[in-house]
Amino acid sequence: MSKSIFYHAGCPVCITAEEEIITLIGENNVEIVHLGEQSNRVSEAENKQVKSVPALITPTGNVLHINFGASLEDLKN
Amino acid sequence: MSKSIFYHAGCPVCITAEEEIITLIGENNVEIVHLGEQSNRVSEAENKQVKSVPALITPTGNVLHINFGASLEDLKN
Repeated sequence: MSKSIFYHAGCPVCITAEEEIITLIGENNVEIVHLGEQSNRVSEAENKQVKSVPALITPTGNVLHINFGASLEDLKN
Repeated sequence: MSKSIFYHAGCPVCITAEEEIITLIGENNVEIVHLGEQSNRVSEAENKQVKSVPALITPTGNVLHINFGASLEDLKN
């Protein structure tokens, strides 16, 4: 299985989600990309249909947008 | 590690996310709960702070709300 990619932006919500993802999938199975520090990879993320962070790209290329403990109401603000 | 729980409602988006989660985490590590068919477990999900589906409860009890390929704009409708 090829690696998943986890895109985040360093926010506390992202970091907690990152830790959970690493625990669930295994550190060796996911590449962590901090888009705040690696802004040259934002266009790469966009090309993979990432619309928000944190987001996990699965080995099959699908995007799982993850909102850690965020309610839909929060997303509307 | 105790099991994760994946709550969904049977929508196509949920099913695709379910398949990805099973692939990533492993079928034996996650309990799948279809809230449309097991409505008696909705209050259980609410107690775990699930606000939307699909959602994954990690073994540590955190909620990962997953929006498979959904944009923030879609969530506002």
